[in-house]
Parts: sequence; structure tokens; C-alpha cells
Amino acid sequence: MKHFKTKSSIALAGMLSLGLTQQQSSFATEKEKPSRPNFVVIFADDMGYGDMGVYGHPTIHTPNLDEMAHEGQKWTNFYVAAPVSTPSRAGLLTGRLPIRSGMCSDERRVLFPDSEGGLPPDEITIAEALKGNGYRTAAIGKWHLGHQSPYLPTNHGFESYFGIPYSNDMDKVRGTADHFTLAENERYQAYNVPLMRDDEIVERPADQRTITRRYTEEAVEKIKDFKGDPFFVYLAHSMPHIPLFRSEEFKDTSVAGIYGDVIEEIDWSVGRILETLKKEGIAENTLVVFTSDNGPWHIFKTHGGSSGMLRGAKGGTFEGGMREPTIFWWPGVIDSGVVMDMATTMDLLPAFCSLSNTQLPDDRIYDGYDVSPLILGTGKSPRDVVFYYRGEQVYSVRKGDYKAHFITRLEYGSKTAHFMTEGEFRVKDTPTHHDPPLLYNLSEDPAEKYNVAEEHPEVIADIRQILEEHKESIKPVENQLEK
Amino acid sequence: MKHFKTKSSIALAGMLSLGLTQQQSSFATEKEKPSRPNFVVIFADDMGYGDMGVYGHPTIHTPNLDEMAHEGQKWTNFYVAAPVSTPSRAGLLTGRLPIRSGMCSDERRVLFPDSEGGLPPDEITIAEALKGNGYRTAAIGKWHLGHQSPYLPTNHGFESYFGIPYSNDMDKVRGTADHFTLAENERYQAYNVPLMRDDEIVERPADQRTITRRYTEEAVEKIKDFKGDPFFVYLAHSMPHIPLFRSEEFKDTSVAGIYGDVIEEIDWSVGRILETLKKEGIAENTLVVFTSDNGPWHIFKTHGGSSGMLRGAKGGTFEGGMREPTIFWWPGVIDSGVVMDMATTMDLLPAFCSLSNTQLPDDRIYDGYDVSPLILGTGKSPRDVVFYYRGEQVYSVRKGDYKAHFITRLEYGSKTAHFMTEGEFRVKDTPTHHDPPLLYNLSEDPAEKYNVAEEHPEVIADIRQILEEHKESIKPVENQLEK
Repeated sequence: MKHFKTKSSIALAGMLSLGLTQQQSSFATEKEKPSRPNFVVIFADDMGYGDMGVYGHPTIHTPNLDEMAHEGQKWTNFYVAAPVSTPSRAGLLTGRLPIRSGMCSDERRVLFPDSEGGLPPDEITIAEALKGNGYRTAAIGKWHLGHQSPYLPTNHGFESYFGIPYSNDMDKVRGTADHFTLAENERYQAYNVPLMRDDEIVERPADQRTITRRYTEEAVEKIKDFKGDPFFVYLAHSMPHIPLFRSEEFKDTSVAGIYGDVIEEIDWSVGRILETLKKEGIAENTLVVFTSDNGPWHIFKTHGGSSGMLRGAKGGTFEGGMREPTIFWWPGVIDSGVVMDMATTMDLLPAFCSLSNTQLPDDRIYDGYDVSPLILGTGKSPRDVVFYYRGEQVYSVRKGDYKAHFITRLEYGSKTAHFMTEGEFRVKDTPTHHDPPLLYNLSEDPAEKYNVAEEHPEVIADIRQILEEHKESIKPVENQLEK
Repeated sequence: MKHFKTKSSIALAGMLSLGLTQQQSSFATEKEKPSRPNFVVIFADDMGYGDMGVYGHPTIHTPNLDEMAHEGQKWTNFYVAAPVSTPSRAGLLTGRLPIRSGMCSDERRVLFPDSEGGLPPDEITIAEALKGNGYRTAAIGKWHLGHQSPYLPTNHGFESYFGIPYSNDMDKVRGTADHFTLAENERYQAYNVPLMRDDEIVERPADQRTITRRYTEEAVEKIKDFKGDPFFVYLAHSMPHIPLFRSEEFKDTSVAGIYGDVIEEIDWSVGRILETLKKEGIAENTLVVFTSDNGPWHIFKTHGGSSGMLRGAKGGTFEGGMREPTIFWWPGVIDSGVVMDMATTMDLLPAFCSLSNTQLPDDRIYDGYDVSPLILGTGKSPRDVVFYYRGEQVYSVRKGDYKAHFITRLEYGSKTAHFMTEGEFRVKDTPTHHDPPLLYNLSEDPAEKYNVAEEHPEVIADIRQILEEHKESIKPVENQLEK
């Protein structure tokens, strides 16, 4: 097992001379990378950094994910574009910060059933880019980028769609608090969410008790159907977002309770996908990425997940809100190991395009970097900076080992009632501004405990400048979440 | 990869019918277990539950431990006998709670250079038991069970000893705070600790800069020397207890700073041991156990480790103080996987004796259980209860999924100065008594966040009774730490 790690570009140069150069030079001869590989992205909802065995959970049983990480690469500094659903998903699919597409908001965190907006038609999704290069495409699961017709997956580069178009706790018929006491057959009916096929509602309320299994079966069918052509399958689970549901076979099977059951069904689902790729003989032609849209929703106690040793959770800009458990798998092509370099979901678009020789128009700013050399083991990550947005504001910036918090604020719901109702999307706490910012060395202090601002004024000055330059690159656009 | 998990003995019965029975019946024919296997115990000092890759650390690079866990078993509910060095070590080597041998104290946490006491000669250590059955034995590293002649390893069943006989931060020449600013070649001289071979001091101060490497070389030599006979090697690293030292080759190599360097040298050490066992052709004849003596020492900030998602740290009776990252490795004999059943270091003595057909006298109470069926995959853990002692008091009790805290108290040093001097062993905080006790479901809530005492009075009643019965089994003995 090969492990990758970089302290900085300087430390990396040393490491390259120790091993990676050799690997790099032997790469071309040893392995044959397909010219248009398949891509499968599996995106969990609200799963925390600590919610699988290989990321440290003591009681959630994830043999398939653990094995995927062992065969593939476990990434430990992988981020999402925002600490909440809609903007996070916009970032992944477009390779751009959600602020550039109007897909984040200080007023409304995400899209709601009454929202009129969505991902603007002129945004280019991974699906759209790859489709233009002959890829078959399918979206399965949670969309949350607009449920009005112009914004649906089938109008954003996907040939087909099957899933719940927004969060599974919306369209409430009863209060959220009720769902902890309702019997399962009544519980799913408390959320009148639609299940759609392409642009039609085929079931309402969606029977969430079987949702993970049905999404998985759809993904397996698509993979089998597409296998003669290059394809992109985007499987965005509705789980483990509350309300939690799992199939009959997973009921009360986890020692970790219902949350454990739900993760273990997702683990099973991952096993089914990888097994299908192997059986169909296309595993070595397929890059699979597993990650989550944001950190765990702590306020739901044992119905929410864990950030492991990281601080913070969903909605916040401490690491637990935006750093995700992430596995890359591509047997026979990528070396297995632990990847500690920084990357984000926004880097998938440029990396996939690079790996498949797909052209992207240069008429816009991309926030993603081509991390294909990091995936292939031929180079380090081109990314050295991460911006942590909450709504439309940058709260923190990471540069290399250091992260500066200019603003901090409680995670969603931390100070509101434990069981929020849908109307309570306005947070009741207030932001705290820091000048100088709090500064943490994330490599030595991943839990963000020890402020070292006083020791490193030069790092802060550097980060301030990066932030100013970034802000200048942001142009006003119509806000889609407030429409 | 096979995963073991049990919710309770009832849930386990179901699991057995699903898979373990088959495994059990095929065991005898498929695998040949040696009649007197070798045992190697590698015991880190103050390493936290979250301090290795496979237990979730994002920046500490532990490829050897990760691979050991993948080839072997990662145990996620494995405890020590006490949250601090001396009593924890007494528990491991005797299979008995330290209260029974007088090896714990409310007044003095551990043995100090001025201590006159030690592990009583009539206690039976693992080494002594195995030696009686023809085993070769060696102790290497930190002893901390008495440095006066009657208490040394060579008088407790070990043929040889090489190591620092107590904590590496003792015999201070300068204050602890100094060591963070001193150059390395001066820094080790600030702790005038002896290095002993058998019962003689061979170096003082011990040059700690090379201590992990030298312990490792000694262990490798012993393994090579012993290989014709069954053997027990007890390698108790002095690291990562502060002050931190690592060999030249590991200096500034970890992205996680000096603490990372130190763990990565221990990881290298583990790799050397396993590699030696393989090269010598005795890997399939050797059970290796890796664990740590107690949780991380948080007050030393980035010089201390991490409990991962667990609450608490060294000195405390929340999980982070006493649950340890633990790997069992025995290629070709034990199935690989994750073991979620409960066990403790005290269970090693009875398990090793069972695995080697070694007799133990029945003239005393053992607190350890024979967990060999759990190791071999032929049965569940016989242990359903863990007592969490702080000094001479039981602060908490775990029964199955539930843990009741009758007393809680800050971890060592949490409220005292950040850099304690040796005289400050009396904690300045005070215990808080809880009636009813705090109650946590550790399977659903491993981070001990959500008190469920009100919902489960019957569990509390059950645990109260277990505690009363346990207290009755404790007979007064001479306190060795206060001598």
C-alpha cells in the first residue's frame, strides 16, 4: 500500500525524489488508462467525516467502504463547496463556487418546495460536459438544484433521472418532532415528497422505506445498460439525512442503532455497485468516487452522524461541516493508499474532463483544479487554497497547513430548538467576527483546538490577500434560492 | 474481510446462526493452530484512540499499522485497566484489576523515582505464567511497576530487560515547560532517567533521541534469538509520552508535526517487528497485539495525541481515557476484520494461557476473561462488563451497550497549569457525584453525548447491583504507590 502525503510543495519535492518519481516513470508502461473512462459519483447526504469504519467509527459496520478504501484511495483532506446541500451540489456538478451561479443565500440556505429558482441553464454540469464527448449519463437520487422544469437533471445534461428532487424532510405533513414517535409506515407519509422519473412525479409521498435499495437498483441497471459506452452515473443518496429510513433487511441490524442501519445499507449499496462493475468487466475502466454533501446534522442526536475528531458539523465552517470521508476507487489504474493532499468536489469536473479528454469552454471562472495527477499518482495536488462559505460570505480560508477563521458561527440549529420546523431556516445565533482571525494548523491540529494567530502574522497577511483577490473575482448574479 | 459485531448476547445468537457457526465448524480442518504460539505485545504510551490512520487520523501516516489492521483484526471496544500508566500496566501483566495488587492510588497516580513499592512478588505476570510452560521471555521499554530490585522485570518472569524503568518525563533536571524550547541535544538531558539492562543502569540520562529505534532493535534481536522456542516479547514503548523524541530519520517527516513523527516511528517499528516474524518464518506461529496504556495527554496540545471521536483523555473515565486503538495479528490463523465485542488488556493473560495450554493457579481472583474464542472467531466475548477506575475508586461501569458514570472528574491537568511539574500530581479539581448516574448507550452514542438515564432505570438498577457485588470482591491490600 502506497501512502501519499505532502507537508507543503517543498516537502513534496523531497517526497517525489523518494518514490513518486519512480512511480511516475513506470506508470505509462505498467498501466493502460482508458481514453474515456466511466465515472460514478456516490454522494451521501449529511454523512459525517467519522461515519465509517476506516474513518474511525467504532460501531458502524462498513466492510464494503473499508474494502473500497483499501483497494483504492482514502482521501483525508477532501472538501465540499459549502456546508449545506444545495450549494454543495451546485459546486460539485459545475466545478464552480455556488456564489458564481447564485446557488447560495444568506437568507435561505437551500431550495425549498416553494422555490422558483434552480441551477441556471447556462451552467455546465459534469453530465453536460461529458455528454458532449459521447458519454451516457444518469442522475439518481437527491437533486436539490431546482425542481421546476428548466432546472431538472434532464435539462442539465442527464439522459434520465430517478429520485426525490429535494430534501427528504420537506413537504412536511406533520412536525419533524413527530417522526421520532411515529410507526415506520406512518412516518414516511409525514413527508409528502415526490419521487420523480425524468420530469414526472411517479410516487407521492415517496416510500422512503425502500429508497436506498431502489436508488441502488436503478444505478445497477444504468451501469448494465450503459456498459458498451463511456458513462457518468451520479448517485446522490437521500440518506442519511433525517428522517431516517432503511429497507426491511437492514432494520435493527446495526449495533449503532437506526443511523447505523442506514449507513450500513449505503455500505451495502456501494458493495452492489462495485460488484456490478467487476461482474460486467468494466471495473478497470471506471473511476468511482464516494463522498458526502456536508457534515453531519448534530442536533438530531443519535439520528445524526459524527464528524469524528473534526470540530463542527453541518452548516458550519469548522472542518466537520465541510471535510468529507472520501474514497477514490479505480482498480488496476490508481495506486491504493492514503491521500492527504487537499482537493474538493469542485475539482471533479476538471479532473474528469482531463481524464476523458473532454473540452470545457473557457468563458467562465472555474474554481476546480485538475487533480487527475493526484488521482493517478503522477503529481501533487494543484490546490493549495480552500474557501469556506456560509451562505454568501467567506467565513474561513485554508492555505496549505493553515486555516484562518474571519467569522465563526454556530452550526445550524445549535441554539434553536432541537427539532426545527421547516419555517425555522433563519438561524437565531449571530456571527462572531475575528480580527485577527483565529488561525489553526490543520496538519498538526486537525481538531482546530489551538489558535496560533499570534505566532504567524505573516500567514494571516498572506491569507488576507488571497481572500481579497478572491472577493474581487466574484461578480453579482441573480440569487436562485431567494426566487 | 469478515466483520464481527454483537449488539448483545441475544443479537449475537442470531449472528452466530448467520455465519460464525460455519466458520467455527470449518476452523479445525482449515487452520492448524500451534500448541504453544509466540506472543508479542506492543504497548504504546499515551497514544490516543484516534492516533492512527485506520482509527481515523487524517494526517498521521501509519501504513504499517493500517496494513496490520487489514491483515488482522481491528478491535474497537478494547479497554485498559486504568486511565494511567502504572495501574494500567499492572492490569495487563497480571490479568487483575490494579486495586487487587495495591497498584493504584488516589494520592499518587503512578510510581515516581522516589517510590519504594512495586508489583508485589506474589503477583503472577504473563511472563511468569508462560515461562513456567517453557516460554522464553523478554521485557523491553517502559516498565513502571517498580524500579527497586524486587520489582524489576527480571524478578517478574522476564529473562531480560532493556528499557527506561518509569516515565520518560521523570527525574527532571529542568521544568517541563523548558523542554519545548530546548534544542534536542539538550532536551533529553533535562530528564535524567536511567536506561537499564536487566538490573543495571547502563546509561543516564537515557538518550531518548534514539529510544524507539533501540527498543525495536532489541525486540528484533530477541525474536531472532528465541525463534526455536515459544516466546513472549513485551515491547512497551516510552513514546509518545512527553517529552517527545524520534530518531534522525523521522525528524520533521510527518505533516502532523513532532507528535506525528513519533507515531510514525512507532509505525515503522511495528513494521520491523512484523517483517522480522515473516522473514524468520514464524508469523503464522505468533500472535501480535498492539495497544496503548491509556488515552492521550490533551494538556500538551500538539505534543499530545487525540481520542478521535471519543470523549475525554488520559486520567479520565470517559471513553477517551481507557478505550484504546488495538490490533490483533496472527496471519493464517485468525480471520481479518473488525471486532466490536468488548475486551480488555486484563483478558490477555487468560487468553494467552488458554491458547498455550498454560495452567494458572486458582488461588486468586482474576478480572480477565479468556477471550481466545473471540480472537479465533469461534465464539463471542465472555466479557460484558468493564469497570472504570480512577485511582482506587470505580467512577463508571459499562454493561453491554450501556455505561453509567457515578462519578466524573476532569482529566489530569485540565484545570491545573498546562505544563505540570512533577510535584503537581494531586489534581486540583474535584469529583462530581451523580445520582442517578449519567447513562450513555455507547453503541449508538460512542461519544457519550446523550444522557439516557431517565429512559432506562432498569439498566441503572442492574449496573448498581453489579457494582455492589464487585466492591464486595475487593479486599484491602498494602498500597504500593504510597510506599
